Amino acid sequence: MIAELIAVGTELLLGDVANTDAQMVSRGLSALGITVHRHTVVGDNPQRLTDALETARRRADIIITTGGLGPTYDDLTKQTICKAFGRELELHQDILEEIQTWFQTKMGKKMPENNVQQAMLPVGCTVFTNPVGTAPGCAFEEGGVHVLMLPGPPFECQYMFENRAVPYLEELTDGVIVSHEIRIFGMGESSVEEALHEPMTTLTNPTLAPYAKTNECMVRATARAESREKAEELLQPLVAQVQEILGDVVYGVDVESLEEVVSALLLERGLTLSAAESCTGGLIAKRMTDLPGASRVFRGGVVSYTNGVKAGVLGVPETLLEEYGAVSEPVARAMAEGCRRICGSDLAVSVTGVAGPDTDERGNEVGTVYIALASGEGTVCQRLSCGKGRGRDRVRTAAAHHAFDLIRRTLLGKFPA
Amino acid sequence: MIAELIAVGTELLLGDVANTDAQMVSRGLSALGITVHRHTVVGDNPQRLTDALETARRRADIIITTGGLGPTYDDLTKQTICKAFGRELELHQDILEEIQTWFQTKMGKKMPENNVQQAMLPVGCTVFTNPVGTAPGCAFEEGGVHVLMLPGPPFECQYMFENRAVPYLEELTDGVIVSHEIRIFGMGESSVEEALHEPMTTLTNPTLAPYAKTNECMVRATARAESREKAEELLQPLVAQVQEILGDVVYGVDVESLEEVVSALLLERGLTLSAAESCTGGLIAKRMTDLPGASRVFRGGVVSYTNGVKAGVLGVPETLLEEYGAVSEPVARAMAEGCRRICGSDLAVSVTGVAGPDTDERGNEVGTVYIALASGEGTVCQRLSCGKGRGRDRVRTAAAHHAFDLIRRTLLGKFPA
Repeated sequence: MIAELIAVGTELLLGDVANTDAQMVSRGLSALGITVHRHTVVGDNPQRLTDALETARRRADIIITTGGLGPTYDDLTKQTICKAFGRELELHQDILEEIQTWFQTKMGKKMPENNVQQAMLPVGCTVFTNPVGTAPGCAFEEGGVHVLMLPGPPFECQYMFENRAVPYLEELTDGVIVSHEIRIFGMGESSVEEALHEPMTTLTNPTLAPYAKTNECMVRATARAESREKAEELLQPLVAQVQEILGDVVYGVDVESLEEVVSALLLERGLTLSAAESCTGGLIAKRMTDLPGASRVFRGGVVSYTNGVKAGVLGVPETLLEEYGAVSEPVARAMAEGCRRICGSDLAVSVTGVAGPDTDERGNEVGTVYIALASGEGTVCQRLSCGKGRGRDRVRTAAAHHAFDLIRRTLLGKFPA
Repeated sequence: MIAELIAVGTELLLGDVANTDAQMVSRGLSALGITVHRHTVVGDNPQRLTDALETARRRADIIITTGGLGPTYDDLTKQTICKAFGRELELHQDILEEIQTWFQTKMGKKMPENNVQQAMLPVGCTVFTNPVGTAPGCAFEEGGVHVLMLPGPPFECQYMFENRAVPYLEELTDGVIVSHEIRIFGMGESSVEEALHEPMTTLTNPTLAPYAKTNECMVRATARAESREKAEELLQPLVAQVQEILGDVVYGVDVESLEEVVSALLLERGLTLSAAESCTGGLIAKRMTDLPGASRVFRGGVVSYTNGVKAGVLGVPETLLEEYGAVSEPVARAMAEGCRRICGSDLAVSVTGVAGPDTDERGNEVGTVYIALASGEGTVCQRLSCGKGRGRDRVRTAAAHHAFDLIRRTLLGKFPA
C-alpha cells in the first residue's frame, strides 16, 4: 500500500518548526510495511490543501494529514477534507462532553465556545479519541482511499498515531517489513557503497541501502515477508555477510550510538571509565551521561580547558606543557593517566586538540587531535586529523566519536587497528 | 515572489531524518520576504521528482531542491531537473579539480571515480561552490522560474543556502524584511503573550510574534521597509517597549543562547568560570566550550558523576555526602567552592540533581536540582524542580539553562530575583 502525508500549518512554511510529525509517522508506516511516496506541507489555506488532497487521492491508498484540527479560525483541515471527499460534518455529543471534561479537569476552566467545532466530525468516520489534548482525530474510506486525520502538536500526534492510527492501519495491511541497521564508524559512505556494490545493486528482497550520518554511516537491510520470522530468515544471512565484508568498522547492529556500545562493553566487563577533556570540553562526559544508568560505568571526569586545570587538577607536569604544548602526545598521555588516578576508574580517556576556529599558538592546525586511553595495562595514544574545514562543532563531535571508537577497539582487543 | 521547496531522499520518507533543511531554508526565505507555499518530499525516484517539478514550476517563481547531489547511483536530482527543464549537463573542470583537492587535503586520499559526476552541472548555470563538502550546488532560470539546487546534509545545506543561495535570491527581490529576536528565560509563552497582548494583536508593521523554544521562549519583531535603516526605525522603539514590559526575563536581543550572554558578561568583567557537574554530566562545560574563544572565560571543570569524584577531586567532605546525600544544598555549595578552588576561577557553578529516569536513593524526585554559584563574595544556592515528567534529557537541559541564568543574574546584580 502507498501512503502520502500532508501536513497543514503556516508555521511549517515559515520555518518556525520542523515537520517532525512526518518523520515519526513515516517511521511507523515503514514498520507496518506501508510505503510512503510523498510528504507535502501546505499552509492554513483551503485552496492549496484541496489541491494537495486531489492529487494525493489519485496516487495513494492512504492519506494521513497532520495539523489543522485545533479550535481556531485557521484550523480548516476537517472542513476542507469533507468538502473534497463529499462528506458532511456532524456533532458528536460524546466527544463534546469529553472535551468539556478535559477543560474542567486538566485546565480548571470552562470550555471556550469555539472548541465546539473540535467535536464536529465527518459522518460515518472512525473517531480517534484524544486523551492527551482537545483535538480528536478520525478516519474514513472513500473510493478505496483511506483518509486519516491527526492533530499537529508532536506529542499529541505521536500518541494518536501509535494508539489510534496504527491499529486502524494494521487492519488494512498484511505481511510485515523488518529492517536492521548496521552502524559503521571509520569508513565513508562511498567506500561502504563500493565494498557492498554487488548486494546493493542486485538484491530486491531483502535490500541493502546506505545512509550517511554525521561522522559515521549506516547500512539498512530490509526484508518484506508474511511474518517476522520469515523476514528474519532473509535478513540474518545478509547482515552477517555485511559484517564479514566490512569487518570491525561495524560497531553495532540496531544500536543508537558508539557510546551506547562502549557503555555496554564496560558493563559486560565490570569496568569503569572517566574522561579528561580539553577540546571536546565535556562532550564525551555529556554523551556518556545521556544514557540512563550511566553511573554504573562512568565515574566522571575533568574538563581541563586551560593549562592551569591540566596541571593543577590532572597533575600534568608543567614541563610537558612547556616543552610539547597542550596539543601533544605526552600531554594527552599524562591527562589520561592523571584522570584515571584522581577519578579511580579502570580506564580513562583523554582528548586534547585544536577545535578552531584558529590554529593554536604552536601552529597545530584546526582538527589536530590527540586521544589517549589509560588502563592498568598501560596507555595508548592516537593522533588524528578530524573534521577539518567543517567548523568547530564538527571537529569536536568527530573527536568524541574517535575517542569512543578507541575505547571500543581497545575493549575488543582490536587496537591498534 | 512565491517559492516551493522540494526535498529529495528516501531516508526522509522512511523517517530516518526530519526535513530540517526545509525549516532552515523556509526561515531564510521568510527573512528575504519570499513566501513559501509548499514543501514536498519525494524519494530517490526520477519519475516522482519529475512530477513534483512539473507541478511546482506551474505555481512558483522559485524552486529550491535539497538533496540528491551526492556521488552515488541514487543521487539523481541534477539529471532529473535537467531533463525536466531541457538542459544538458556539462563537466566543469575547475569544480572537478576542487573536489579532487578536497579529497586529497581533507580526506587524505584520492577521489573515488564516481565523484566525477558531482562536477557535472547544467549548461549556463550559476555554480554554487561548496567549501564544506564535495557536492557543489547551482542555479539557473528557465521560463521565469528560478531553480536552485542545494546539497542535503544539513551542515552543507545551511552553509550553501546562507552563502550561495541568499546572495543569488537577493538579486531577485526588492525591499527588505528585518527582524530582531528577543530571547526570554523564566517566563512561559502564554504569560509572554498575555503581557504583550496589545502590541501583538494590533500592530501590522512592525509585527510581534511569540515562539516557544525548548526551556525558553522568544518574541520576534519584524518590519518590512524599503531599506534596512527604515526598518530599524520601525523596530527599535518596539524592541525597547518589549524589554520594558517584560523586564529582566529578557536575557538578550539577537543572541544565540544564555551561555553566549554569560560568556560576554564574563569577558566584559574580566572574570573566569568553572563548573562542577553531577546530573548535567558535562553539558554546561560542553555548552560553554561550544563558543569559539571560550578559553578566555572558561577554565574548565569537573564532572563528578559519582560520590568518589565529588569527594576525591572536588574535596566535598564525606560527612556531607553521608548526612545530606549527593542531591542537597550543602553538597551543591561544597562542589562549587571546591571547583572554584581547584580550577582557580573567579566563579564556579555547580549542579547536582536527579535527572531520572528514577528517583534517587533518598527519595528525591526526578527533576530536583540544586544549583550553587561560588565567588569571592560567597556562595548562593537555588533549589529547583525542573523538566519533571519530560524525560532525562529535558531535566538536564533545563538544569543547565537555570545554571546559566543564575550566573547571568548574579553578574548583573539581579540575584536573588
